[in-house]
Amino acid sequence: MIVSIIGVGLMGSSIAKDLRARGFASTFLGVGRDKGNLQTAIDLGIINEAVSIEEAISKSDVILLGTPVNTMISLLPTILDGITDNTTVIDIGSTKEELCSSIREHKNRAKFVAAHPIAGTENKGAAAAINNLFDNKTCIICESELSSEQALNTSKRLFQCLKMDIIEMSAKDHDLHLAYVSHLSHVISYTLGSTVLELEKDESKILELAGSGFASTARLAKSGPDMWVPIYEQNTSNVIRAVDAYIKQLSQFKTILEEKKFDELREYILNANKIRKVLQK
Amino acid sequence: MIVSIIGVGLMGSSIAKDLRARGFASTFLGVGRDKGNLQTAIDLGIINEAVSIEEAISKSDVILLGTPVNTMISLLPTILDGITDNTTVIDIGSTKEELCSSIREHKNRAKFVAAHPIAGTENKGAAAAINNLFDNKTCIICESELSSEQALNTSKRLFQCLKMDIIEMSAKDHDLHLAYVSHLSHVISYTLGSTVLELEKDESKILELAGSGFASTARLAKSGPDMWVPIYEQNTSNVIRAVDAYIKQLSQFKTILEEKKFDELREYILNANKIRKVLQK
Repeated sequence: MIVSIIGVGLMGSSIAKDLRARGFASTFLGVGRDKGNLQTAIDLGIINEAVSIEEAISKSDVILLGTPVNTMISLLPTILDGITDNTTVIDIGSTKEELCSSIREHKNRAKFVAAHPIAGTENKGAAAAINNLFDNKTCIICESELSSEQALNTSKRLFQCLKMDIIEMSAKDHDLHLAYVSHLSHVISYTLGSTVLELEKDESKILELAGSGFASTARLAKSGPDMWVPIYEQNTSNVIRAVDAYIKQLSQFKTILEEKKFDELREYILNANKIRKVLQK
Repeated sequence: MIVSIIGVGLMGSSIAKDLRARGFASTFLGVGRDKGNLQTAIDLGIINEAVSIEEAISKSDVILLGTPVNTMISLLPTILDGITDNTTVIDIGSTKEELCSSIREHKNRAKFVAAHPIAGTENKGAAAAINNLFDNKTCIICESELSSEQALNTSKRLFQCLKMDIIEMSAKDHDLHLAYVSHLSHVISYTLGSTVLELEKDESKILELAGSGFASTARLAKSGPDMWVPIYEQNTSNVIRAVDAYIKQLSQFKTILEEKKFDELREYILNANKIRKVLQK
């Protein structure tokens, strides 16, 4: 089995590491623009060699598309144009609606599986790849009714090898739900980081006081723009909806403070505490 | 050396564990209202025995005040009234201005040190105590000019034994700065938790999709109201100021999305990424 990773980033590299260690395939090819990163992936034993996209398309049993989501939109039609009969193409991006729409009428649509393995870190590149990143996490497959049985089976075997729970939903629902549980969290971290960095211009020592609570809440603010700007570009309206819902909650919290209604604050916090049962799953 | 912990919670218990392991004192007394929690602290070897507050006041070389900050305000005058000449009283609360004001004119003010060891987790009680919680973290001492040399020396030895970096500032500056780097982070997590829990009423499966990014940003939403309502009560105006600064940043982010200015979004994210150097300290 030959698996090609197009976009040898944190996600694609972490997948390749586990698939290799668990015997899913023995040959991994890498496609990317950053030669230094490809060399790192070879040195770390993540890919066997770096190849052109044409070579990956013609040789692979499975093509994993792990680039930023805007690059996926431009590459996927070309990839589907050129693949052989037995190749399955799987994307692992964080947005689905635009990508699925863009190739819905493609003659090889059935060889494509739109997937989102929900895992990651705020770091990037092959050097940041980690083992067991996906164990017991959720993988969403969208529009599975448009994928062939063979393509679906291959991708399910792959995500099962990563020890993921697979669920299915429409691309539209995926993008709405991820706006709330992922894209909004990133907005919140970016804006917290910016708020404190802005204040630091006047109060140069303030960040020395940041504890582990701040570090946790601001962790996602380390995530780079190459991956995240295209996500916001493709999911703008859902993210705005999530931000509006969030601002409503924040305004409610602020009003409670302004009116010094501390019994209400207690209720507010007790309700928010219910997130504990979710986070311990 | 006898150290009493008044309020045998996560903070006081974690301090006692390290102080005992590192030989700072051999006898730790616990004062608290929750008998089950005190028994847990005895069973875990955190305290030697549970005593009344009167016994703690009369016997201790060091009294560590680790209750919620509203309880500190009511207990501290009584404690200072009763202590012997060689006792040092140290609070470890998250707000300082109101507490310091409340005992500024007390005849034994010099025996008190207002301290904030910046560390913690979202869990509570003696059972949640952990070793090495304070290593390499920052401890703020406020209004040190009002503490005696003996009290200051004792508290510095204690926080150095916890391997903390000690810095000094006014109570006013402490409360303003902590509003930004700690209390705001909690507001943000509580409101994120509430936003997603609210949505879950309609979309019952949404929380299954939450990944590690959401878990990180929402972690502090698990923090309970007993500790946090009094913090917001004592630091209301600074927290409102921090929330306003945050809403300004959030509105800017939303406007960028609404106007689809993705080049600006890239700049916004690149700027927020600067938090990486801070979080890696």
